Amino acid sequence: MAYELFYWPGLQGRGEFVRLAFEAVGAAYTDVARTPGGEERMAALLDGPDQTTPPFAPPFLRDGDLVIAQVAAILQHVGPALGLVPDDAAGRIWTHQIQLTIADAVAEAHDTHHPIASSLYYEDQTAEAARRTRHFREERIPKFLGWFETVLARNPTGPAHLAGDRLTYADTSLFQLVEGLRYAFPNTMRRGEGAWPRVTALRDRVAAVPGIAAYLRSERRIPFNEYGIFRHYPELDP
Amino acid sequence: MAYELFYWPGLQGRGEFVRLAFEAVGAAYTDVARTPGGEERMAALLDGPDQTTPPFAPPFLRDGDLVIAQVAAILQHVGPALGLVPDDAAGRIWTHQIQLTIADAVAEAHDTHHPIASSLYYEDQTAEAARRTRHFREERIPKFLGWFETVLARNPTGPAHLAGDRLTYADTSLFQLVEGLRYAFPNTMRRGEGAWPRVTALRDRVAAVPGIAAYLRSERRIPFNEYGIFRHYPELDP
Repeated sequence: MAYELFYWPGLQGRGEFVRLAFEAVGAAYTDVARTPGGEERMAALLDGPDQTTPPFAPPFLRDGDLVIAQVAAILQHVGPALGLVPDDAAGRIWTHQIQLTIADAVAEAHDTHHPIASSLYYEDQTAEAARRTRHFREERIPKFLGWFETVLARNPTGPAHLAGDRLTYADTSLFQLVEGLRYAFPNTMRRGEGAWPRVTALRDRVAAVPGIAAYLRSERRIPFNEYGIFRHYPELDP
Repeated sequence: MAYELFYWPGLQGRGEFVRLAFEAVGAAYTDVARTPGGEERMAALLDGPDQTTPPFAPPFLRDGDLVIAQVAAILQHVGPALGLVPDDAAGRIWTHQIQLTIADAVAEAHDTHHPIASSLYYEDQTAEAARRTRHFREERIPKFLGWFETVLARNPTGPAHLAGDRLTYADTSLFQLVEGLRYAFPNTMRRGEGAWPRVTALRDRVAAVPGIAAYLRSERRIPFNEYGIFRHYPELDP
């Protein structure tokens, strides 16, 4: 049976990291909440009293009897079947570690526009957002992307991939992180990119993977917008 | 060889989640940065140019040739050897998912006192901290602890443990989350605890595990303080 992905329709959000892994290899999956009746099915799984492994929040994956939430756990689960992990156990642990660090960066990117509460609108926390975002742009983007640059530079098999010598879900996730940061903070990213050439090259390499390239041209790829993790507010990117 | 844990000395922080797993079962480990010369060894691993899997940040674990950062990845790695995971693959995925959600709660607890930047002092972001913390106390603590309560209530083997019918690292981590929240927000937690009786009972059960009880009485348990994740600022807990 095809994998079933459950995530809010209408935004890339955290679900996009899972979509990209499937699309990279052409795996069969259903983006359930974007199908007729799918949102109701998602709500039933989220709130159903019989669900013994209730997701804390979307995205979550259904694979047969398994229901798995948390992007990093989902990718770790599907990675071997998709061929998106190294063959060795140490390489798989490393890939997962990189993904967890990407997840940390994503959470911080979200909090630039929601530094006080997710339950408030951006418009209700603009002063705090401006202050937090300045630190994110000046300190955190360079720290995170600098670390990925170091990881690529030190890969014993060369800088083409983050872990091992072939495409992994960490690569597709770093692509999405860079795309999201470019959308949200174009000026910052343009000024900074000289410091992370290997990251930029990896972004380009992932974009050229046939499955990813076809996906990015398709209607399945929801455009970035101001409902997702990565939001472009010009005042936050001077 | 004993496990080597690397973490900042002088605070519980994220390292404590790893310490508790070791202490629960009496596993041999060295808390390297608290030994003579240990901080230099930690710095060498963090900054060493030959490290092909560089930790993004402490805590990290050394297990033979493996260097693993990210608490959830560390616990997933040591869990089977320590006997702190269910036997079945589905149960292990579930345990990891719960741990990842605990990690999310921990990150949000940190950001209550540092809503703008980790690089600033709390004193430089008190107004924002007050505002963020109010949402954390009123919305996020009930949401997180309510979810753990649901997980315990729905465990098919009974509410004694989060995953399966024996102690896992998710249990020891939830103990630490509750302890930390009680330290940081004693009034909030006292007022709220009627809503999560199974969580409280699990906290008590973990505290009574012989290895944990001995650890909590020992000098190895660093007291909570205002350098760690969970900080008590009375103005944030009216």
